[in-house]
Amino acid sequence: MNGAERGMTTGPTRDLAEDALTEEVLARFDTAPSERFRHLMQHLVGHLHAFAREMELTEAEWAAAIDFLTRVGQISSDRRQEVILLSDVLGLSMQVIGMAHPPTGGATESTVFGPFYVGGAPTYRNGDDLANGARGEPCLVAGRVRSTTGEPIPHARLEIWQADRDGLYDVQRPELSVAQGRGQLDADDAGHFWFWTVKPEFYPIPDDGPVGELLRAARRSPMRPAHIHFRVSAPGCQTVTTHVFAAGDPYLDADAVFGVKESLIAELVRHEPGTARDGTAQTAPFYTVDYDFVLPSATERSRD
Amino acid sequence: MNGAERGMTTGPTRDLAEDALTEEVLARFDTAPSERFRHLMQHLVGHLHAFAREMELTEAEWAAAIDFLTRVGQISSDRRQEVILLSDVLGLSMQVIGMAHPPTGGATESTVFGPFYVGGAPTYRNGDDLANGARGEPCLVAGRVRSTTGEPIPHARLEIWQADRDGLYDVQRPELSVAQGRGQLDADDAGHFWFWTVKPEFYPIPDDGPVGELLRAARRSPMRPAHIHFRVSAPGCQTVTTHVFAAGDPYLDADAVFGVKESLIAELVRHEPGTARDGTAQTAPFYTVDYDFVLPSATERSRD
Repeated sequence: MNGAERGMTTGPTRDLAEDALTEEVLARFDTAPSERFRHLMQHLVGHLHAFAREMELTEAEWAAAIDFLTRVGQISSDRRQEVILLSDVLGLSMQVIGMAHPPTGGATESTVFGPFYVGGAPTYRNGDDLANGARGEPCLVAGRVRSTTGEPIPHARLEIWQADRDGLYDVQRPELSVAQGRGQLDADDAGHFWFWTVKPEFYPIPDDGPVGELLRAARRSPMRPAHIHFRVSAPGCQTVTTHVFAAGDPYLDADAVFGVKESLIAELVRHEPGTARDGTAQTAPFYTVDYDFVLPSATERSRD
Repeated sequence: MNGAERGMTTGPTRDLAEDALTEEVLARFDTAPSERFRHLMQHLVGHLHAFAREMELTEAEWAAAIDFLTRVGQISSDRRQEVILLSDVLGLSMQVIGMAHPPTGGATESTVFGPFYVGGAPTYRNGDDLANGARGEPCLVAGRVRSTTGEPIPHARLEIWQADRDGLYDVQRPELSVAQGRGQLDADDAGHFWFWTVKPEFYPIPDDGPVGELLRAARRSPMRPAHIHFRVSAPGCQTVTTHVFAAGDPYLDADAVFGVKESLIAELVRHEPGTARDGTAQTAPFYTVDYDFVLPSATERSRD
């Protein structure tokens, strides 16, 4: 005994399957007041249903995906952002960044934001040591911030974060109560900046969570080439979120998150102990790296 | 000063953008030993990148999606499964179920599993009251479990869960330490089952989380028609996960999760106080509903 046997009429939104189901889901977004949101959701639903049907996604596979996404969210915290990491290893982050910041106008290119940014990092002054105890070889980073027309940008704000000698960010060390290898500082009146930190090293992205499982299932390398993260901003300018990569790194052509830009690679020059360019006495070997940032004005073409 | 100015050669996996970026991400899955996993991931990446590029997804929209998915995972617990709820409201769940359980062979149709199943529910016997204190009008549910060839299936296991009079499942009431409107029982030697519970009522899906935000942004109704969840299983048979819906419910044509099948609708018949069919004396008005389940054998066509 069921409805069909009882001769009931099938309503327009019952027994939905295949195309009719997709159409009904799309129609349920027709009432969204934001046209952009409606378009985004309808395209997303279209791709999601097409994916499931093309692949004849099974219930077991669906359940595995549900479990995976649940754990990706649950492992995320104020010290770890696994959803961003997932977007990064699937190349989605770089696809979005490529559209928002096409390599035009001489501005510094953008790359992945990554999962390790923390707001409200300690404030430093030019010449300070952002390492703040992080393990690694000393490295003096210096450069200038300019506009695309070549003018220096005084007092541009630089936010900096990076991994230590062991390839770990401070937020990956639960025993730490202070920021290490992380800080913000302002360029001087002529757009110059310089600070000490530790030499960045290549490292694996965090692979003890669901994204690590995904990489292992694909036999993919979790390695990233050595880099320092920068977010550079100034009034009237577009913010540039990027890295400076270490030239010669063995993983420059195998970045797990597809973020390497040729224009973002700089030499880390090794020096014997002695007086560094900023006048400080260095008792151990140290490195220097020079990199200039170029910010587009707020009115130059940008999509974001 | 940058790499391009230094005249370095661009490697094949640097400066990736647009199609070249998508191709490189796909290639990184070529090493996956499971062909099915490789195909799934490569199709997923293809759709994900196509979606982002067709919509020219902005960084702000990407960040909103990251935040949304993070919260969907984080609000999920052993009492709430928001990722399943998201799949349900996007129609993905019903699309997968439709492929795994096409309506053939006279078997009971399947519908959404939903976010409220809990394993290890209390065990009951035929005639027991699964309400266990849940608020609502008494309802006697009875039927028989058969094979697609019409044979009764003795001792078939039924798992049952449902919302109470207020539209809430037990797991949505943090003050409860016992299961209510939830249990498992076995059919008798002839496949018959009967139990008391409360009359199901229509209700909104949980809309105090991210999925609720999504529905509100789309001005979509969160309502589901009244139903009782069943998962029916027996050795040698395929398990059927389904609902029995209440005939006449105002939301049968507007289910927030697209789950209504005409064949799953049954009349809830109202009775004045008196002796019910199972011999019990009822001092208040009560309802009865009859529904038979038909399980396909394990060897009949199924995709899961």
